[in-house]
Order: sequence, then C-alpha cells, then structure tokens
Amino acid sequence: MTRSPIVPVAPGRGRSRLRPLGLDEVRITGGFWGRRQQVNAEATLHHCRDWMERVGWIGNFRTAVHGRIDRDRRGREFADSDVYKLLEAMAWETGRRADSALDAAIAELTDAIAPAQEPDGYLNTAYGRPGQPPRYSDLEWGHELYCYGHLIQAGVAQSRARGEGELTKTARRAADHVCATFGTDGIERVCGHPEIETALVELARLTGEQRYLDQAALFVARRGHGTLADIEFGRAYYQDDLPVREAKVLRGHAVRALYLAAGAVDVAMETGDEELLAAVVRQWETTVARRTYLTGGMGSHHRDESFGEDFVLPPDRAYSETCAGVASVMLCWRLLLATGEPRFADLAERTLFNVIAASPSEDGRAFFYTNTLHRRGRGTESRTDTDSPRADSGLRAPWFAVSCCPTNVARTLAQLSGYLATADEHGLQLHQYADAEIATTLDDGRVIGLRVRTDYPAGGAVTVRVTRSPDHGPWTLALRVPAWTAGATAWLTDPDGVRRPAASGSVEVTRAFRAGDQVRLELPLAPRWIRADPRIDAVRGTLAVQRGPLVYCAESTDLPGGRDVDAVRVDPRAQPRERLDRGRGGYRPATVLVAGELTGTDDRNEQRDASWPYEPHSHPPRRTTAADRTEIVLVPYHSWGNRGPSTMRVWLPTADPDSTTPTGRQSCTNLEESTDRTAV
Amino acid sequence: MTRSPIVPVAPGRGRSRLRPLGLDEVRITGGFWGRRQQVNAEATLHHCRDWMERVGWIGNFRTAVHGRIDRDRRGREFADSDVYKLLEAMAWETGRRADSALDAAIAELTDAIAPAQEPDGYLNTAYGRPGQPPRYSDLEWGHELYCYGHLIQAGVAQSRARGEGELTKTARRAADHVCATFGTDGIERVCGHPEIETALVELARLTGEQRYLDQAALFVARRGHGTLADIEFGRAYYQDDLPVREAKVLRGHAVRALYLAAGAVDVAMETGDEELLAAVVRQWETTVARRTYLTGGMGSHHRDESFGEDFVLPPDRAYSETCAGVASVMLCWRLLLATGEPRFADLAERTLFNVIAASPSEDGRAFFYTNTLHRRGRGTESRTDTDSPRADSGLRAPWFAVSCCPTNVARTLAQLSGYLATADEHGLQLHQYADAEIATTLDDGRVIGLRVRTDYPAGGAVTVRVTRSPDHGPWTLALRVPAWTAGATAWLTDPDGVRRPAASGSVEVTRAFRAGDQVRLELPLAPRWIRADPRIDAVRGTLAVQRGPLVYCAESTDLPGGRDVDAVRVDPRAQPRERLDRGRGGYRPATVLVAGELTGTDDRNEQRDASWPYEPHSHPPRRTTAADRTEIVLVPYHSWGNRGPSTMRVWLPTADPDSTTPTGRQSCTNLEESTDRTAV
Repeated sequence: MTRSPIVPVAPGRGRSRLRPLGLDEVRITGGFWGRRQQVNAEATLHHCRDWMERVGWIGNFRTAVHGRIDRDRRGREFADSDVYKLLEAMAWETGRRADSALDAAIAELTDAIAPAQEPDGYLNTAYGRPGQPPRYSDLEWGHELYCYGHLIQAGVAQSRARGEGELTKTARRAADHVCATFGTDGIERVCGHPEIETALVELARLTGEQRYLDQAALFVARRGHGTLADIEFGRAYYQDDLPVREAKVLRGHAVRALYLAAGAVDVAMETGDEELLAAVVRQWETTVARRTYLTGGMGSHHRDESFGEDFVLPPDRAYSETCAGVASVMLCWRLLLATGEPRFADLAERTLFNVIAASPSEDGRAFFYTNTLHRRGRGTESRTDTDSPRADSGLRAPWFAVSCCPTNVARTLAQLSGYLATADEHGLQLHQYADAEIATTLDDGRVIGLRVRTDYPAGGAVTVRVTRSPDHGPWTLALRVPAWTAGATAWLTDPDGVRRPAASGSVEVTRAFRAGDQVRLELPLAPRWIRADPRIDAVRGTLAVQRGPLVYCAESTDLPGGRDVDAVRVDPRAQPRERLDRGRGGYRPATVLVAGELTGTDDRNEQRDASWPYEPHSHPPRRTTAADRTEIVLVPYHSWGNRGPSTMRVWLPTADPDSTTPTGRQSCTNLEESTDRTAV
Repeated sequence: MTRSPIVPVAPGRGRSRLRPLGLDEVRITGGFWGRRQQVNAEATLHHCRDWMERVGWIGNFRTAVHGRIDRDRRGREFADSDVYKLLEAMAWETGRRADSALDAAIAELTDAIAPAQEPDGYLNTAYGRPGQPPRYSDLEWGHELYCYGHLIQAGVAQSRARGEGELTKTARRAADHVCATFGTDGIERVCGHPEIETALVELARLTGEQRYLDQAALFVARRGHGTLADIEFGRAYYQDDLPVREAKVLRGHAVRALYLAAGAVDVAMETGDEELLAAVVRQWETTVARRTYLTGGMGSHHRDESFGEDFVLPPDRAYSETCAGVASVMLCWRLLLATGEPRFADLAERTLFNVIAASPSEDGRAFFYTNTLHRRGRGTESRTDTDSPRADSGLRAPWFAVSCCPTNVARTLAQLSGYLATADEHGLQLHQYADAEIATTLDDGRVIGLRVRTDYPAGGAVTVRVTRSPDHGPWTLALRVPAWTAGATAWLTDPDGVRRPAASGSVEVTRAFRAGDQVRLELPLAPRWIRADPRIDAVRGTLAVQRGPLVYCAESTDLPGGRDVDAVRVDPRAQPRERLDRGRGGYRPATVLVAGELTGTDDRNEQRDASWPYEPHSHPPRRTTAADRTEIVLVPYHSWGNRGPSTMRVWLPTADPDSTTPTGRQSCTNLEESTDRTAV
C-alpha cells in the first residue's frame, strides 16, 4: 500500500533504506522538544509574521501587484524566501494539529503572494518588473531559484499537511517555469544559492512528475563547472568550483554547501545513483571530522559565512550559523534515510540540541543568527523596535536585516516529529528521543503503536511501551544508542526484564510484541570532560563538558563577583557532577558543577593589561591575584544568553595552561601548589 | 636656524620632543634594509607602475579628460590613491638619491593626473562627471578625501625631496578645495576612510598655512559623532562611533583606525593638545596589550578587516593587513616624536621586520596583502597575468583587485631612513639599527657625523663611529635598547672601552666626542621561546621563537618527508639555537633549530581523519604513528613563502599538548616516555 505521510522528505518506494514516519504518525507529547514546539506554535510563528509585515517583506508582494515595486520594495533580494519559509512552518504546524486560524493565515498570505506570479510562472519581487533588473540577470546573487525552492517546499508542506491548495498550485507553476527556463534547452546555469534542488525532488515525490526530478538532477550535474562568475570569495563560495561527484569535502558558504548536498542525496536516492550518494557521504565524513564544532555547528568564517580550512575552528570566531544547523539536520536526515546508518542521526541530535535549540530565546521571540562557542564581551540588549544589522550580537535579536534563521528554526521545529522514527520491512526504528506517541502501519499491513516516555535529555531513561502490535509474528524495535555513550554504558531492558549493555550504534529487540510490552533504554548521562583533536589549535589546553547530547558552557551570570568567563580554570582530575536543580520543568536539563578556580587575569588586573602580552618563556610567571578554588556552574549551551548580557565559553582552560615550565622539566605541580604559586 | 629635512613627518619647531632626521641626513648603506631599499627602487616601483598601467588605474585620469570615464573607468573607487602612493614612493626615492629617470616618471604621471583636476580643485576619477555619482554622495565608501590624503602626502614628498613641482601644486589645489568644501561652513561630515587628517597637517607643516591644520583638527573633532551611516559593520568600522578623545582602544577597520590615530597625534602635536595626545597613547597601550599579534600585526577579522575584541588573535585567521602594519609604523613614529619614549620605536621595529618586511617577495614583485601567522593549506602560485581577487592566498601575489599594500610598502621602504634617528637639544638618538651614515646639524649649529656599522638583525653588534663632532662641549648619543632584550643582557662599550650592561629603554653616552670615537652596542640575539598571555586562547599550549626583533616560524619546506607543519611538536626544555648558515648574505638572518618531534597526526593518518574529532578525556590517547625526535628548522617569519607553496606556523605546540592526563594527576611524562606512549 502507498501512504502520504506528513513528512518533509518522502523517498519513493524502494528508493531509501528507511521509510520516514510523519507528523500524523509521530506526535511529540511533552518534554524538551514538546516545550519547543509549543513556543514555536504560540509565539514564533506570530512573531515572524508580525515582523515581516512590519519590515515590508509581505507587503512587497502586494506592492508588486498594486504599486511601484521598483521604488518601494523592502528588504534584501531574498526577502521573499522568508515569507515562504514561514508558510512552510505554518503548513507543517497544521499537519501537527488542526488549527483553523493557521489555515486562514496561510490562505491570507497565499492571497498576497499568488497575484504577484506572472502568467508564465515567474515569481519574484526583486526582478523583472519595470525599473528592476531583468529576470535571471544576476544568478550569482539574485537568489531567484533559491526563493522558488522555499516556495516549493512550502507548497509540498501544504499538500501533505492539508491537501493541495493555492500555495501548492503557485509552487507548481513556479516549478514548471523553472523546468521551462532552465531545462536542457534553457539557461545552462545554476543559482548562486542552492536550495531549488532538494525542493524539486520533493515536488517530484509529491506529484510523481519525473521532470521535476530531472531538473533537480540537471542542476546538481551542472554545478561545479564554473557557470557562475569567479567572485572575490572564489567559486568555492557557491560550490561552483568542483562537480559534486568530485569534491572531497564541503566547502564555501556553509548553508549553500549543505543545501546542495541535501539535494544531491535526494537526487541520488531517486535515481539510484550510488556514486553520487557515496560522494556526498565522503564529503560529510571529512567535514564532520575536520570542519565541525563540538556543538555540531558548521562554518567558522564570518567574512563569507563559509567553512574554514580543516581544523580552523576558533570558538570565539565560530560563525556556526543557525541556518547551517538546519541545513546539516536536513542533510543528516536524508543520509539516514538513504543508508540507515545511525551516525547520521548522531550528528542530527547534536545539532538539534546545540544549534537549533540554541537559536531561539526561551520565549521564542528572539534568535541567534550565529552560534559562537565563546563570547568575550557582554552584548547589549537588542532593540525590539528595529531589526538588527549585525549577525554577531552577544544577545539574541528579534529580527535581522538578513533574517533567514528565525523562519528556518520555525519550520524545523514544526516538522520535528518527522525526524524521530522510521520503519522498514522488519519493524520500527527510533532515532531521536522525545516523549511521544507513535502509530504506523508496516509495509505488510501490520499496525504498530508505541508510547515513548522520557524526559530526555534532562534524564537518560527512555521507556517504550507497545500500545498496539499485530497478533501474529515478530517484528523488530530498533533504538539508536548515541555515539556519545562510547566509554560509558547504555543499558537495554527487554520486555522480559532482562537487562544488557547496549553498544553505540543501534540496539534491537525482535519478538512477537504484545500490547503492554516495555523496552527500556538507559543512556548514561553523567557529565564528562571532552577533549579535541590536537589539530584544532584554538582549543588546545582546554576541555569541554558534555552531558548526554548536550554541550555545556560557563556563563558569567553564574560566576561570583561579576567575574568574566576568561577567569575560569578547570580541574579535570575531578569528574563534573550534576547539580540537583529544584523547581525546573522537565524540559530544563540540569546544570553541572566542575572543580576549578577563578584566576585574577580578568579585566581588573590593570597592571598586566597595559603591557605587551608576549614574554620570554624563561621569565617567571607574572604576578596575578590569588586564584579562588571554587566549583564552577555550567549550563547547557543552548540555554545561554537568556539572562541578560553575559560572557560565555564552551572550551575551558585547564588550571595549568602550560604543560611545561621554565625550569626545564614537565610541570608536576598539583592544583593546590599552582594556586599558591599564582599568589607569589 | 630652520631646516627642511626630507622627512615624512616634520613637526613644527618646539612641537615635538624629538626632531626627525631626514633622508638627506641618514643614508642606509647596506644590510637588511639596504637590500630592501635596493629591491624597492630597482623592482617594486617599476612593478607597481607597470601594473597600474595594465589594470587601467593610471589610464583613468586620461579617460577622465579625454574619454568616457563613466563607462570606461577601471578598478575600485579608491584606485586613484594607489597612483598617488606610488608617486609618493617615487618622490621619497628621489630624495634618497638623485635619479633623473624617476624625476621624469614623476613628471609624466603628474602630467596624466593634473589635467583631470577640476577648476575648483576637485580631483577624483570615480565621481562627479556626467554618468557618475555626484561628488561626496557616498562619504561612507567613496574614499574621495582618502584619495586626497594620499595625493597631498605625495605632493609634500615631492616638495621636500626635490622642491615644489606640479604634483605639489595639484595637491595644494585639492587641499584648498577640501578646506572650502568641508570647512566650518561646509559639509559637516567626514570621510569613511581617515587619511586626509595626517596629510593636511603635513601640508600645514610644509607650507605654514594654518587653515590646513585647522581643517585636519576639524575632521578629527567631527569624527565619532555619527555623521556617517550606521552600516552593517556598525559605525565603529570607520571610528564614527566614539569621539577620538573618548575612545579607550583602537577598534573597527585597522587601517582606518591607525591612520586616524596618526592624524590625531599630528593635530595634537601642532596644537599642543595634551589631552588628545594622551587619549591616543591610552588607545595605543590597550591595543598593543590586547589586540596585537606577536609580529606587531593588527586586525584579526577578515570580514571587515578590523581589530577583533580583546585577545581574539587566532594565528590561522590573522588578517594583519600589510597596510595596517604601515599605518602602525606611522602612528608609532609620530608618538615617538611627540613623547620621546622608546616603546613606540620598539613596536615600530617589530612591525617593520615582521609585517612590512614580510609582505614583498625577495624579488619585490609579489606581495602579501594579509600576513597570517599560521597557514594550514599549501597555497597555489598566483597567476602573474591577472590581479588576485583574494586577499588570503597562501603565496604572494603580483597585484590585487584592491591593491593598497604594494604601493604602501613601496613608500614606506623609500622613506625608511627617515625613521632611524632623531635629534634634540642634547644630541642624537638612534632608534632603529641599520648600516648607515648620519650627518646633521644640531639646533645650536654644531655639526655631527656618525658611521653606523651593523648587520643587524643578522648580527647583534652595532658600532657607531663618530666621523664629525664639534670641537667644543659635550653632546649625548642615545641608543635604543629594545624591549625584547628584557631578561637577557645588552652591553654598551663607550669610547674608552668601558663595557657595561644596558637595560631596555635607552642608553646614553655623553661627552665631548671626537672624530674616531666609537660606541658599541651588543644586543643579545640568542633565540628564545616566547609565550603568550593566557587570555590569547588561540595559542594556549604553544610557544613561539623570537631572535632579536625577528619572529620565527616553521615552514613545511624545511620538514622531512613532505610533512605539514601541523605535525610539529616542540620541546621547550632545550633552548633554540642558531644554525650556522653558509653562503647567505648579511641581509639574511640565520635560521634557528629547536628540539621537537614530528607526530603522526598529519594528513596520512587516514583512520583518525574520518572520525569525530572530539572524545571523552577519559579515553586513552588515540593510536598515532610513532613520533620522530628531530631538530626542527625555523626560518624568519618575514622570509616564509618564498620557496613555493608551503604550510607555516609561528606558534608551535609543545610536545605534550595536555597538561593533564585521565589518570587523575598532572602529567609528569618526559618527552621520551610520551614518545613511547604515542606508539602504543
């Protein structure tokens, strides 16, 4: 039997290793992500719409029809796309739960957009009308096809969530126009910003129309042949330097690289192109090993929002754009579907908890555009009455001049339950853990129901109760055991109460389940010190703390006496420990305590601060104020910056930053001695 | 008596603590800087002129007069300035030595430029003509006043070197136009790129015209009051966020910040404004203590070419623009003249040897635009037939689309002998050491001559022989003892052969010198390990090597087996030592050897390279290939990249990157043990 699950990615039958379960099959019922989805629905969607009315991006469509768009258009050349992304978010939200007000909002926005579409399907408020640059006159920076991509994804979302509507039709007209204009007989170029590729494949999946897939495959194949100009950042910026099949690593603008890779995987799945899939897997592997922050964040260059060279991952210059996190999750999910390998779900989990979840404020009305791992200066509160011109403020901002991230977070949270589980011919696979209800029908017609109870990642226990199981024959329940458990032990308890260790990867229970059967996975959440590959020079001599999938950080808000985080030195001889936090909901993971000291090398040490910061290693250490032994509070990285201006760091220097001393032997001073020494 | 020395900066009588000696009073006769000046004169000046003919920047002036400049103009909006900077370099060069061919070249270039000047003095090829944007319509980015600044500096150079000529007259007409247009009754704004300030003060010094000084003071006072737009980078980008008097540190675009500071010091000197001077000194102190690379380089942000926040100095993302080095030397020189304090000469020396000298190739026909302290990927040879679109290539490029640096280096080298020595009422001061002949007349009419013999910084001995001295009365010879000697001992031998230690700062010999008297300074050049302030996170756990004023680096060219510099681990228990280099000229300082090892964590360790680069600190160290104990060759930083594509790093990780081990105690393994361990 065929299904139309409410999912962002629906590979054709037999085209992927796993079949995704949809928003109609998996419902998040509470906990960390439940809270996030609630805030997204109740606050963020309205917030984004209000802002886009205010800054005129929605009005652009009306102006294009009724006014002087060449004179009155507002926002950047890609502003249309954020309206589409909001529509996509709203559409998934209506697939998650019936909401007639949202249905009406979608219809109203569509009514603004659709009349701006030209008879031949062209739709963009920045090009093509009198007084504007001609259509496709600036493929490098114009973003026209990128905007279509988001329009098409919104149209697909509407169709899957609520059935084909005007938004879907508008998207199809645009897609038809793209095929007519950029087909084999058309403009033989690509868009500076990939995105259309994955969208066209999804439209092909939705409609069964081969030509959308062909066009996507054509865009992927064309890329890397230098049809775009050699700009200041080089053609690698928009991945036009090397064909996708030949590249060894993701490079250039991170969001562009990841969207393109996602589209290439989609094409590879639908065409059975194992070589193309293998090329992207290879690029992903190298990117993950060499160009990814501990948070899962990608992109270290502010200048061109790009991946840096291998191991250039300075925490204080992390760009780690929120949208790159969204794009990375999109790529991971497609690779997971294509291959079934849990490593892709591992990175998705890390990125969801430490990039996607870090972007919005607790009230869902302000966002990080970039996600630095070290904030040195206390930021200032963003103005709430104007958009933020800069992407690297120390505090979340309500809106940005380039505001791709808020709507990208919104659409990801709205579709999130679609990333939790899959099915195959053997049974069900759980990839991400959240309090949830799951019900699906296997390919052979057997109906399965599950109730997942967990307060993960606050707690590490995941209980899966079978609520419905076929009367005959065994099936397999597979649970991902995250790679971060390596070195500790995860335990699985089967329905008979037998408890056994579960290694990283996947653990399976196969049997003729009966309703009421329980499987329990206990993930070892004790916080742990994490070290980095020594080639990541910028974090040498430091350690980070991770607890389960969550990366932790020190925030000045938690330090005594108004100290900055640069005063923190940690003592890794003692294991980090959880603090018992009282009065916090299940969606707020525990804080962590680590042993350490606060050095005197902070802003108040004026004498030192007026001098040249380099000195002969043979000199005795400079005089600093006495260090205070203390326990240092760490909070989940995703939660930082919610309590006013602060400084923050993920990678914490160990108490003795130099492993060598000027006396000609390795340092053997213990912490007490070194504390004394600093007071000399 | 008044003098008109051939100097870039000539404070009014009594306006500065020290009086600069000019190119006609100090002649560099060989050694490191002699070679650089020779290459500059014989290669770089022609190279710059040839390129500017080729890329059309000189032709722009002709097109402005005879053609369709709105259609045919070439280069960026500030391209005019590079023609002016070349003219300035040529003019100083004619002040250094008579050269009729250069005189003719200057006249020819001036003949191209002068006709493009409008009757009211306006001169810019990018604005104001039919089809072009109006004059001063884009003060943020238009660079019109910036271009005048360089024109005026060229005009001053011509006048001082060879007497007033057409170039000087053109410059004066432009300056008059600026005063008329931007005076108290004119446009009450500033230029996005400071430069005009210091130039106008110099023109006032040359001509004695108060209004040029007043206009410069007005520009300095106006700045920081938000008369420029709040761009994406913020107003701090062009120092329009805070008045100069109120700022605590240099910030924003490094070259802009430093040019502005130089202009403010010029204004402060001429107006006796101690408060303004103190404000710049304070900014300089904080900038040097917190925002400066070991090389003296400034600016760590690629995105906006700006200073980063305090201690954000990642070596692999160092921007350290060559022009910021030039501007820093300009600022240091003015602060030295104003205060007489040797610390300003210290930073100038560091910057000259490690930024200015690093930019040009050995043949003077290719340049670094940025001066990174860590190059991870081997660059590719730049094409010699086209300009380089990017500023961060791994190899020097012959020209850039934005090519401010080559001409800035050229003018600095041409005027370099003007930075060596000063005079005051007591006698002579030597600030920078080079093989040179010096002759000047003190204020009281006494004539003094010196012969400086040294191969510094190849060698550390500087011999100063008095060649001419007044018959009556004592005078003082003061020699700077660089701050980098701290912890080692410099020795001074006076004319009687008495040898005594000389502390960092300044050492003086006062007596009735006779011709033939000799003073000898011995600077301790033994190479030394240098460590950084622990707040410079990006270099934690590493050391650098400095020998005299020279920073050293490891370059892959010198490593066995094609290894990359990331394999280098050093052992600071052994002092670095000089290698006896044979067959090298006096202008090539020695290479240095340090003890260390080459680890196996290089590109060939494939197993490790495909995995997540973070792991629990409790895990045993990963398997690596056995480390090879070896001596590692270091070369002067300024010389890197002259032997083909390579990787390079200044900050070298020590052999045991973690000071802590998972066993719960500080690591006491010595190097041999750790070598064994890595082979487990």
